Amino acid sequence: MRALILEGGRIRLADVPTPDRPRECLIRVKAAGVCGTDLELVKGYADFSGIPGHEFVGVVERVSRPDDGHWVGRRVVGDINIGCGVCSRCRGGVKEHCESRRVLGIRDHDGAFAEYLTLPAANLHLVPASVGDLAAVFVEPIAAACRILEQVSLGPATRAAVLGDGRMGLLIAQVLAAAGAPVELFCKHDDRLALAQAMGLPARRSADADPAAGERFDVVVEATGGADGLTRALAMVRPRGTVVLKSTVHDVAAMATWPIVVDEITVVGSRCGPFAPAMDLLARGAVRVDRLVTCVAGLDEHERVFREAATGLKAVFAIS
Amino acid sequence: MRALILEGGRIRLADVPTPDRPRECLIRVKAAGVCGTDLELVKGYADFSGIPGHEFVGVVERVSRPDDGHWVGRRVVGDINIGCGVCSRCRGGVKEHCESRRVLGIRDHDGAFAEYLTLPAANLHLVPASVGDLAAVFVEPIAAACRILEQVSLGPATRAAVLGDGRMGLLIAQVLAAAGAPVELFCKHDDRLALAQAMGLPARRSADADPAAGERFDVVVEATGGADGLTRALAMVRPRGTVVLKSTVHDVAAMATWPIVVDEITVVGSRCGPFAPAMDLLARGAVRVDRLVTCVAGLDEHERVFREAATGLKAVFAIS
Repeated sequence: MRALILEGGRIRLADVPTPDRPRECLIRVKAAGVCGTDLELVKGYADFSGIPGHEFVGVVERVSRPDDGHWVGRRVVGDINIGCGVCSRCRGGVKEHCESRRVLGIRDHDGAFAEYLTLPAANLHLVPASVGDLAAVFVEPIAAACRILEQVSLGPATRAAVLGDGRMGLLIAQVLAAAGAPVELFCKHDDRLALAQAMGLPARRSADADPAAGERFDVVVEATGGADGLTRALAMVRPRGTVVLKSTVHDVAAMATWPIVVDEITVVGSRCGPFAPAMDLLARGAVRVDRLVTCVAGLDEHERVFREAATGLKAVFAIS
Repeated sequence: MRALILEGGRIRLADVPTPDRPRECLIRVKAAGVCGTDLELVKGYADFSGIPGHEFVGVVERVSRPDDGHWVGRRVVGDINIGCGVCSRCRGGVKEHCESRRVLGIRDHDGAFAEYLTLPAANLHLVPASVGDLAAVFVEPIAAACRILEQVSLGPATRAAVLGDGRMGLLIAQVLAAAGAPVELFCKHDDRLALAQAMGLPARRSADADPAAGERFDVVVEATGGADGLTRALAMVRPRGTVVLKSTVHDVAAMATWPIVVDEITVVGSRCGPFAPAMDLLARGAVRVDRLVTCVAGLDEHERVFREAATGLKAVFAIS
């Protein structure tokens, strides 16, 4: 099959054997999105070599257990974490923190920038007909946004800010708004500000945030994708408030930790989330993604697609 | 009166007017301890000029309101935060986060390295006869340790680690142990390890912590006093565990924030705490401080006292 291979910080298109893992389903990839984490992998994050890509939609072609037969021919998305299944965390239902987990396209498991991938049937989620392929690619990042709702209590009186006008910022702001929190999205770029406002999101220029004037938020979600994201979020949160940290950034940044202590801030790291509510938000139109796709191209155009992912919004590989 | 003045990163002994603040009590300082924060102030932290010192015991000499008359002649310690009294945080009982608060010896209010200081009567706490002057100096830092118990749930099944073998580490380990949490203190120095063990604390060398071997703690309290404390604590905490951050360090440190995200760690900043339980722990001997005082000297020996505070345990000014 054709696949993109990441090795030594470089990506190339290659012909490689179709994956074949015992106890996993073979999935023909229809489309796969490029995520900030993929860009970080190229920089060396997680020390990954192999096929990247973890936001995908595909069709199940083959299963390895007769019990999973009903999946064949179904259009699916997939949870990216594969736990060992035997450790205390896996038995406790927290396979995303299994010490020896594999993670699709991120850790010890080839990913979705390929014609085929494999995943256990337990990781699969059916995509309803009302959700198209390009939208389905967003289920994984929307699930990551939904994770915030599991971690932080957001009521109608909670003043929430989302910092970052990239893909994740635009998704998180929609998810928090759908949950009923008065949320404001802080945008760095004028075009993103215009897009957010066109999408009906309360959005402002980042420069308009003026913590010195006493405006501080109860909850600030950091989705900047930058190494200085935590420092910027800390400047916007009220004493005893909460910063949710979303960006996985390979770079280190010089930062002072004393504001966390002096203002008694709670910083909550937030990673993967639940697929079911994410799919529901997409299916009922509470989260809109149609304006977020800025590039669709084949695997052979990977240089252009990655360039677009670094500067534009969502770049998607159309694979089969 | 005689007082130590911090100005431009230098401390000198000077004769200055006795403080006189409306609506505050005049307190003759008997003894005052040097804290890590004082050492940071000298480096430029909080941009403070004036008389430092915030851990003290003294005797009330004069009150400004007749209602406070019962304080005169009493031996007291004092809460260091003075709120404006009118903002929403002060009205909500959280004066330690009042935007325009003064803080004894740290922010806009002269401190305890002097023959006299002033504080509002509402900040005072009576010291029982069973608690000596040198012990009473520890009420403020023990209260800061007690703050952790208000922020983090610690049960008998919680595996807690305290990182840092300085004054705060040795106090926090005692406070958590008194609360019934199985706590281990990680010491960098052999002499501190020996002291902690002699005090009956389960203590280990920091180098013996081996997170690679899978030993991770539910809660790690960072009390290193170093700018890299958060990074070191993150290496010891389990996925979805909690790091309590205690050190207020002026320096910035290069740090990667992705471990907070990938392991979904909660980082909780922790500052000042309640005096009543701290005094109780001291009075009933649940927290022992007698072996923590390594230097007692007068204000004129400030160079030696600050040097001792930087390298030894608690250095205390005996003032009157």
